[in-house]
Amino acid sequence: MKIALAQLNYHVSNFEYNVNKIVESIGKAKQDGADLVVFSELAVCGYPPHDLLERREFVEKCELAIVQIAANTFGIAAIVGAPSVNPSEKGKMLFNSAYFIADGEVKHIAHKTLLPTYDVFDEYRYFEPNSEFKVVEYKGKRLAITICEDLWDDQPITNRFGKNQLYRTSPMENLIKQNPDLVINIAASPFSHDKVEERLAVFMSNVRRYGLPVVYLNQVGANTDLIFDGSSMVLSADGEVCNTLKSFEEDYAVVSINQLKATKEAQPTSIERIYKALVLGIRDYFGKMNFKTAVLGLSGGIDSAVVLALAAEAIGSKNVRVLLMPSRYSSDHSVSDAVAQASKMGVKYDIVTIEEGFKAFEGMLAPIFGDLPINVAEENIQARIRGTLLMGISNKFGNLLLNTTNKSEAAVGYGTLYGDMNGSMSILGDVYKTQVYQLARFINRNEEIIPHNVLVKAPSAELRPDQKDTDSLPDYDVLDDILFRYIERQDDERAIVAAGYSAEVVRKVVRLVNINEYKRFQFAPVLRVSSKAFGFGRKMPLVFKF
Amino acid sequence: MKIALAQLNYHVSNFEYNVNKIVESIGKAKQDGADLVVFSELAVCGYPPHDLLERREFVEKCELAIVQIAANTFGIAAIVGAPSVNPSEKGKMLFNSAYFIADGEVKHIAHKTLLPTYDVFDEYRYFEPNSEFKVVEYKGKRLAITICEDLWDDQPITNRFGKNQLYRTSPMENLIKQNPDLVINIAASPFSHDKVEERLAVFMSNVRRYGLPVVYLNQVGANTDLIFDGSSMVLSADGEVCNTLKSFEEDYAVVSINQLKATKEAQPTSIERIYKALVLGIRDYFGKMNFKTAVLGLSGGIDSAVVLALAAEAIGSKNVRVLLMPSRYSSDHSVSDAVAQASKMGVKYDIVTIEEGFKAFEGMLAPIFGDLPINVAEENIQARIRGTLLMGISNKFGNLLLNTTNKSEAAVGYGTLYGDMNGSMSILGDVYKTQVYQLARFINRNEEIIPHNVLVKAPSAELRPDQKDTDSLPDYDVLDDILFRYIERQDDERAIVAAGYSAEVVRKVVRLVNINEYKRFQFAPVLRVSSKAFGFGRKMPLVFKF
Repeated sequence: MKIALAQLNYHVSNFEYNVNKIVESIGKAKQDGADLVVFSELAVCGYPPHDLLERREFVEKCELAIVQIAANTFGIAAIVGAPSVNPSEKGKMLFNSAYFIADGEVKHIAHKTLLPTYDVFDEYRYFEPNSEFKVVEYKGKRLAITICEDLWDDQPITNRFGKNQLYRTSPMENLIKQNPDLVINIAASPFSHDKVEERLAVFMSNVRRYGLPVVYLNQVGANTDLIFDGSSMVLSADGEVCNTLKSFEEDYAVVSINQLKATKEAQPTSIERIYKALVLGIRDYFGKMNFKTAVLGLSGGIDSAVVLALAAEAIGSKNVRVLLMPSRYSSDHSVSDAVAQASKMGVKYDIVTIEEGFKAFEGMLAPIFGDLPINVAEENIQARIRGTLLMGISNKFGNLLLNTTNKSEAAVGYGTLYGDMNGSMSILGDVYKTQVYQLARFINRNEEIIPHNVLVKAPSAELRPDQKDTDSLPDYDVLDDILFRYIERQDDERAIVAAGYSAEVVRKVVRLVNINEYKRFQFAPVLRVSSKAFGFGRKMPLVFKF
Repeated sequence: MKIALAQLNYHVSNFEYNVNKIVESIGKAKQDGADLVVFSELAVCGYPPHDLLERREFVEKCELAIVQIAANTFGIAAIVGAPSVNPSEKGKMLFNSAYFIADGEVKHIAHKTLLPTYDVFDEYRYFEPNSEFKVVEYKGKRLAITICEDLWDDQPITNRFGKNQLYRTSPMENLIKQNPDLVINIAASPFSHDKVEERLAVFMSNVRRYGLPVVYLNQVGANTDLIFDGSSMVLSADGEVCNTLKSFEEDYAVVSINQLKATKEAQPTSIERIYKALVLGIRDYFGKMNFKTAVLGLSGGIDSAVVLALAAEAIGSKNVRVLLMPSRYSSDHSVSDAVAQASKMGVKYDIVTIEEGFKAFEGMLAPIFGDLPINVAEENIQARIRGTLLMGISNKFGNLLLNTTNKSEAAVGYGTLYGDMNGSMSILGDVYKTQVYQLARFINRNEEIIPHNVLVKAPSAELRPDQKDTDSLPDYDVLDDILFRYIERQDDERAIVAAGYSAEVVRKVVRLVNINEYKRFQFAPVLRVSSKAFGFGRKMPLVFKF
């Protein structure tokens, strides 16, 4: 049996676009003599559709899309992800389904059994879990069709306060009784740099348990905060990885399931993956929102330098403009380093000193502030003037503002709400400062795009004389490890101290994370590259005692 | 049997505070000769704890709280809501439980069966559903202990694309087989003005079906966006409402379950309920965050006038200060009306004209903007200068900034991100403009607190000469009804047009709602008073085709 794998980049709710893509791949698969072509989870509507699933019109369009796709399956079969209406009078209105379509007809609809409802996933909000299992027979092969999480039944609950198996049911334990020849898993599995090995291990574990080959077909592309890496693959019954589709781009392959051969490919580093993920995240945000141009504030620091390089790679340097906004507290090298990078990259830049605006605010507020000493209020006013200038350019010229806050800053609230936390999209909000440096070195791997001086100078917000980040924060290697333990691993203070950090420092960092939930609540969507990003996947109360 | 109802206001994760409150009420109930005292759902930690439930330390503190409470139950029984660890090796780590405690010991733990996972609810994110049912026998009575949604098994899925019964299981159908004498339902059921009747109907339906009295004990108080109204009640087996505890404040009552007598109380209007809900929402936000003072921009328009009145009622007029920020486009009455209200209410006010700031931005941006015509960029700069001034005062004096955007504006994106959309909490973000007027009239029911002129003048953002809201939007009675149908009822365009609106107007409004998801993504938490508020309960993709 020849199976075509169509790893496509869908646009949420853009049915015409998605159906055209799917139909085109069916045509190609037919030409290539494939018996079956496989598409990803919720392919017709794109993943994740969120509350659009609650709208009648949306579901009707999904159903129509399946009819349109079915009309193109004469002489071939297709497995396509789409929601389907629950025919029972009880339970949620929808299933998350895989349509098995052949010769113009829907022959079978397999529903997702295990509905991830944790972190960024909220599938039980919309879907009824499946409880009936049926292997599909096609051209002499018996296919066990599963959807994403369905193969993750053995998943332990980690990082919490014990070890449990998250699910009570195993779809494969049910399907294996019907003697399938092959497992097909259609997925919309978002990328996180610390889960790449785990994902492969899950497939390997299924291969070992059931002795069957596994065809894994994942969505590729970014939808708002979630970045899907594709990386679809076929594993032989011997547990060899036989075909891996590209990561972070559309790809297509035809495999003969009876003649699988192991392939070995060099694995990219974690930082290279993060780089590609972020570039894809930016590119798709602009492409799918139909925006062409970006603006950002280039401060001379490492964060904005990296965001500029990522944005230029994603949408082209001619479509990015930057604004340099020095103040009375800015170092000379802030401007010269920023100018050097913009010039080298051929990016349009303007320099606006914020002194005039700062004086105006001092003047307007003088009758109210009186003789009170200068404090964080004045620091924030500088950041907010910059934010307003950037939004002025965004509004006047139609450039989307890219936010440059990194995860370490977002975590401890080292940023000004309505100031440098402005932006349509946070590019580095899931990238710790130490990783930002690694990204900068990766960006400079062939030539010096980011000036060397930017990589070596001490980080500073430059909001008061001689300010350094380390005035109020621990060194970033310490800070980032504490944050990783607290946020990604959900370790509590005791455990972090036990790992060798000062109780005082840990307490301070944890407290900063907790008291700054309100800032992150109003923060831009964050491109997610880790297993625990700020945003939908981390749902904290604002009002609580800690 | 005498049952004490303790309707308390909990602080999320403040275990010492919550346990003290609970222990105090147990003491009081003992003194009053009660056999049993009932507390609300997740009482020990407060509802909703969100992802704090994923932290080991948090769950351990919940367990410790139960031990501390149990030590105070000699001579009395208590039903207390708390999470409990799932002892099985499969499934989610926790149950959402009701502890039945008597004589110093946990005698039984009943788990929640129906886990709401829609709108603002995400209980399946954390909890395993119950599947074992046991009536608790105590002092000759057999108690069917249920938790909130457990009595809502008959709930149809409405406002979507058909009618389904949401749940497959009915806890009461299981419990009734064990011949209970009484149903106890502990809840954390947030207020929405359009669900008050529905809630009573659900209890009545249970009373009718099972012929049993129902004791309903709800949480009171606000936690961030969610406002719990209390309104606990006892219904007799005849379906009479026999005891209703206060709405929007703590309350306590002892009822003899064998001698229930019907009570009739005047029902407040919907607007009075919304008023009380918002006042409680503000008061608890400040109280639980340990903030004392607020600031807001008083524009002379209806929205800020209403927010000022609500804030003064919630935290005292001496704790609220306002800033008047007229521009070259402001009418004289904007300042005079605002001054009149502030003076009448004894609220500190300052007037800062924004001209100096606006000129500074014109100057700073002149080299970039050149001769381009004035457009929305300049309008937004004015709003952002105001936002920055307000945040300056907030940062300098420690006043929390209250946002004044109403739901109609938030829906259609009629507001400036990082400008008038600033604020620590959105007070009116779930109140349509037409309801804001009703609130204003309610506020003025006894005396003219909001100047009459503010109620009668045409709404305007005053960001350009002679601007009126109706220049770009339909009249608010039309707009609000279209929005209600689209947002709360989730009707699609066809259905709204069929209700008698122009297809062009409906299309325009729906489009505005859809293209402004990105603004609401970065908006403050919104005090929720309807069945579909912006925030956690309405989870829309930002990048999608509509």
